Amino acid sequence: MEAYRHKVQVYETDNMGIVHHSNYIRFMEEARVDFMERNGYGYERMVAEGVASPVVAVSCDYKRPTTFPQEIEIAVKVEEMTALKLKLSYIMTCEGKTVAQAQSTHCFIDGKTNRPVQLAERFPELYQIFEKQLQAKE
Amino acid sequence: MEAYRHKVQVYETDNMGIVHHSNYIRFMEEARVDFMERNGYGYERMVAEGVASPVVAVSCDYKRPTTFPQEIEIAVKVEEMTALKLKLSYIMTCEGKTVAQAQSTHCFIDGKTNRPVQLAERFPELYQIFEKQLQAKE
Amino acid sequence: MEAYRHKVQVYETDNMGIVHHSNYIRFMEEARVDFMERNGYGYERMVAEGVASPVVAVSCDYKRPTTFPQEIEIAVKVEEMTALKLKLSYIMTCEGKTVAQAQSTHCFIDGKTNRPVQLAERFPELYQIFEKQLQAKE
Amino acid sequence: MEAYRHKVQVYETDNMGIVHHSNYIRFMEEARVDFMERNGYGYERMVAEGVASPVVAVSCDYKRPTTFPQEIEIAVKVEEMTALKLKLSYIMTCEGKTVAQAQSTHCFIDGKTNRPVQLAERFPELYQIFEKQLQAKE
Repeated sequence: MEAYRHKVQVYETDNMGIVHHSNYIRFMEEARVDFMERNGYGYERMVAEGVASPVVAVSCDYKRPTTFPQEIEIAVKVEEMTALKLKLSYIMTCEGKTVAQAQSTHCFIDGKTNRPVQLAERFPELYQIFEKQLQAKE
Repeated sequence: MEAYRHKVQVYETDNMGIVHHSNYIRFMEEARVDFMERNGYGYERMVAEGVASPVVAVSCDYKRPTTFPQEIEIAVKVEEMTALKLKLSYIMTCEGKTVAQAQSTHCFIDGKTNRPVQLAERFPELYQIFEKQLQAKE
Repeated sequence: MEAYRHKVQVYETDNMGIVHHSNYIRFMEEARVDFMERNGYGYERMVAEGVASPVVAVSCDYKRPTTFPQEIEIAVKVEEMTALKLKLSYIMTCEGKTVAQAQSTHCFIDGKTNRPVQLAERFPELYQIFEKQLQAKE
Repeated sequence: MEAYRHKVQVYETDNMGIVHHSNYIRFMEEARVDFMERNGYGYERMVAEGVASPVVAVSCDYKRPTTFPQEIEIAVKVEEMTALKLKLSYIMTCEGKTVAQAQSTHCFIDGKTNRPVQLAERFPELYQIFEKQLQAKE
């Protein structure tokens, strides 16, 4: 699947002249939203079906700085899936070089009960999308 | 009333080495929240009484740059009040010099009906707070 | 000229479920950067020629809320030009409706001397671009 | 050492009504800056001595949501120190409950050469501060 592209903005840089490290966590979210939309599971559908997926953990290793007005490519992959959790990985590149590697972990919540659910049981179609992506990765 | 103090953070600076201009709009909100709390009308009370005050307009004149790790003092004043709107002004200073002058305009909404209300009629106590501040200014 | 498009992100929304008002000031910058690039005067060229254009003032009138995952179109126009200052205007629309109208004022600085300059004298090509846009507007 | 306190702002919340997860990475920086200042090694001194400490990696586990206008306490500890790297840990609590646990890893750079340095050799006083904190932890 094609990588998501984020164009760096001035307001994302800091006094070192580079993108502030906190913003990569935001770029991950942008890429994740795009990933879900491309897989036919955009925000509106998630809301309509009552599925929410809070971020349980994030981690990011910074390899090289980026700056305005560069463009960062972000490739999202399903890294791991358990009954209750999903782990996504992100490879961020700029001008052909890896600038950051990151991961986010998510659980799934039923919007009606506000409780964690087993994805495979409660939202089987969404589960299959991740399962398919997980296999594609291997 | 004592000025609100905002300590500049690294993530608020940009590649010019100064606070990004968009952040002053956020500092205005911080100072406004603090102003409301000091006047006995904090967020919890506003929610409890069902009053919301969306931002209708903002403007900001930038006089001097600020940077990390400086501290900005923000003095909030009630500038003008009509039946439906409130205008606040903000004088921001740093190390004794004016760095920005700004204004925000707000309307008032009844959380139950989601409609604009006349502040004096619907929330008379809040109206009196602003009225008192307006006189204090003169 | 085609409008710039900003796709709203989750991290740009606030607890009212809508885009936080401070972010529109950032969208203005995005649109301005894009406007400069389309006019053949991107950031690299400005740096190379030693021209900087600090924001002297901003103002924004909020007409309608927007939210994730809507897309905002931003049309930039040269509103006014004096010997020392440039005023740009921004019409932001979403799903065919005006959501915000804004303005930004800029001066021009010579990166070598760090002093304000008369654009027409010091950077005549850039001046002509704005002049042309100003006429196009009328 | 006393915990750093961050007061949540409206612009830090998102459409779920809670603090957006990316902002905790910023709170970590705020607490880190405060930690350095309290240890007599504020930004001005770091700049004067030519030491910079880029963020090499961050990770954050989100335990409970927080929201406006709560206050988050952040306790910073030196977790680990090697010849080239420093790992800090952050315990964030709100109303007595842990809301997030995080870590950041830093290297040290000599501002004159722009190259990674061994902290103990190049900046021995700073090294001793971390060493002392590391022991305090145990």
